[in-house]
Amino acid sequence: MARVTLLTDFGTADGYVGAMKGVIASIFPGAILDDVSHEVPFGAVGAGALALARYWNRYPPGTVHLVVVDPGVGTARRALAVEADRRLIVAPDNGIVSRVLDAADEFRSVSIENPGFLPDERSATFHGRDIFAPIAACLARGVHLSRFGPEIADPVYLPEPGVSWESEAIVGEVVSTDGFGNLVTNLPGASVDEASGVEIRGQKIPVVRTYGDLPPASLAALVNSDGRVEVAARDSSAAELLNADVGTRVRIPK
Amino acid sequence: MARVTLLTDFGTADGYVGAMKGVIASIFPGAILDDVSHEVPFGAVGAGALALARYWNRYPPGTVHLVVVDPGVGTARRALAVEADRRLIVAPDNGIVSRVLDAADEFRSVSIENPGFLPDERSATFHGRDIFAPIAACLARGVHLSRFGPEIADPVYLPEPGVSWESEAIVGEVVSTDGFGNLVTNLPGASVDEASGVEIRGQKIPVVRTYGDLPPASLAALVNSDGRVEVAARDSSAAELLNADVGTRVRIPK
Amino acid sequence: MARVTLLTDFGTADGYVGAMKGVIASIFPGAILDDVSHEVPFGAVGAGALALARYWNRYPPGTVHLVVVDPGVGTARRALAVEADRRLIVAPDNGIVSRVLDAADEFRSVSIENPGFLPDERSATFHGRDIFAPIAACLARGVHLSRFGPEIADPVYLPEPGVSWESEAIVGEVVSTDGFGNLVTNLPGASVDEASGVEIRGQKIPVVRTYGDLPPASLAALVNSDGRVEVAARDSSAAELLNADVGTRVRIPK
Repeated sequence: MARVTLLTDFGTADGYVGAMKGVIASIFPGAILDDVSHEVPFGAVGAGALALARYWNRYPPGTVHLVVVDPGVGTARRALAVEADRRLIVAPDNGIVSRVLDAADEFRSVSIENPGFLPDERSATFHGRDIFAPIAACLARGVHLSRFGPEIADPVYLPEPGVSWESEAIVGEVVSTDGFGNLVTNLPGASVDEASGVEIRGQKIPVVRTYGDLPPASLAALVNSDGRVEVAARDSSAAELLNADVGTRVRIPK
Repeated sequence: MARVTLLTDFGTADGYVGAMKGVIASIFPGAILDDVSHEVPFGAVGAGALALARYWNRYPPGTVHLVVVDPGVGTARRALAVEADRRLIVAPDNGIVSRVLDAADEFRSVSIENPGFLPDERSATFHGRDIFAPIAACLARGVHLSRFGPEIADPVYLPEPGVSWESEAIVGEVVSTDGFGNLVTNLPGASVDEASGVEIRGQKIPVVRTYGDLPPASLAALVNSDGRVEVAARDSSAAELLNADVGTRVRIPK
Repeated sequence: MARVTLLTDFGTADGYVGAMKGVIASIFPGAILDDVSHEVPFGAVGAGALALARYWNRYPPGTVHLVVVDPGVGTARRALAVEADRRLIVAPDNGIVSRVLDAADEFRSVSIENPGFLPDERSATFHGRDIFAPIAACLARGVHLSRFGPEIADPVYLPEPGVSWESEAIVGEVVSTDGFGNLVTNLPGASVDEASGVEIRGQKIPVVRTYGDLPPASLAALVNSDGRVEVAARDSSAAELLNADVGTRVRIPK
């Protein structure tokens, strides 16, 4: 039973996702295809990397994750096949596997270069269909990573901004906003407690345990399901209320 | 062949749905996962309950329905595992199974309390991943409901507003608007016919058989696929045209 | 291993897609269900036809494609079961299979009329659930097309606008805009090259090989993954930049 997941920024309405699924099903008729999302913001490699971080190792070993957020399609950017802690990932080499690299105990990647596994006619604009989908299907069928091309040691890596451990505070920043308008930071959950509170945009906000503990119409910080400090608003968007976005500074007084 | 369906208000872009699917696939690698929707309006328990009513018993006995619209995550609200007419449902105890309770011949529910089926580390903010998904996977593998906790007789129940059978009219109200802007009411289909017409927002509108019978740019009522009276507009949103929403009164003259 | 794909304009939030999937799973518990999209613009038969063209024959022979963009539901329009190059399609007879007809070597269609394969109670407003889904499930189980009704020679056909091969230019038009705002034309890829350039809305724009070759904030034409000429903008919507839409003239100087 082989499973291939899909994460893209294509939207679904135009049928492009259907084309990728069809290619996989043609190569491996028994494949189970799980959509993760086709609604990653267009070209948003960083957001895609964080989304991938949330599920890649929740799936069992052997799962193939097809990830196509690929603003550089058809240019010189490489195409990657990755094995990370026994899960397999196929993606453009643009940094989208950076958070997997951060988390994995074992990580190896190859540059997809062997045309033997690819269709003879390949478009310059839709590698999701013409390169990534066939390779994902071959991986799901059990073809070994090393067959697709040479191992590479330098996949593109997008570091997360660092946390500053200052004398009077721990200082981090917002690294993403999720679909609810919650502000996800780079601060580890262990850096806050109910006594510390959190400062953002000049406001001091309390730390609570879960969304339901937020008083109506108020802001608070909590440790989210990624184990990070997150700023949330009750039934509302913290991003809008605070006019905050990726890069906004977040400070935890010591 | 075990099938688990998913209904949430998460959106897909952040990877949270992928995390739930991965947990299920890890516990039960052969599970088939069917998305119903991840676009339920945020926290809209009533809308989710109506959506669930449309599919839960269309699936065959043994299907597991995972339903996570959960504004009270991490608070004292219970977590439910339900068996209704041989279909299984896992959901927060916030009323989202109310329409299933209305329709089912047999209904029993347990409060999920046995930690033996749950991961040791559980977040306070994402029970979809840490509680509901593992229980859904266990149900799909055939673990009996009673293993998860004590049976409860009082799951949260959100009644639908009643219909008034008055001397000169049957009076109901809009209970939901669907994605097309159609106004779904609590009036049973049998309460209208072509002679009766329907009154809403001071307008008298005709009753037709199907959407295609609507004259261009006009409003009409029909018996929808739930067997309820619905107000629709040709190629347009009845909700916008009438400035109507949940709670708007709908009257059928006798 | 039988696979059924789904393309609709229903959105997902109301549970209607879940109802269709449940019907299929009830008739054929082992069916694998692949979503293509439920976000086709409402009633947009032409857009749905182009989306279907992108995936129907990427899937392997035997795949069943369920397509429900059906503004005429419940009216006299016929319901079709189609076999095209060994793929099977179930859809309303409103022209949505036109691009399949253009491309297929073999094409036969029947009008679904035999009530023996349909539920006794059928709504007038949701044939996706009550007619198309059960027929799709029966096709996936191997019931032969001819069992559902008489063969028909005249399914509704929506021609694409023609291309004019004039003395000084090849003249075509925009036939769809995709979710990125790219303008897809009816001009074959072979009609352009880097020397020709493309004229649209009084602007002369260059021809490039792929999206990544577009200079920042600029427009260009390229041969897209359908093999057609397409006008695109870097990190932006060509449709908005050019105020162009379906029907906008596109000219390739000779």
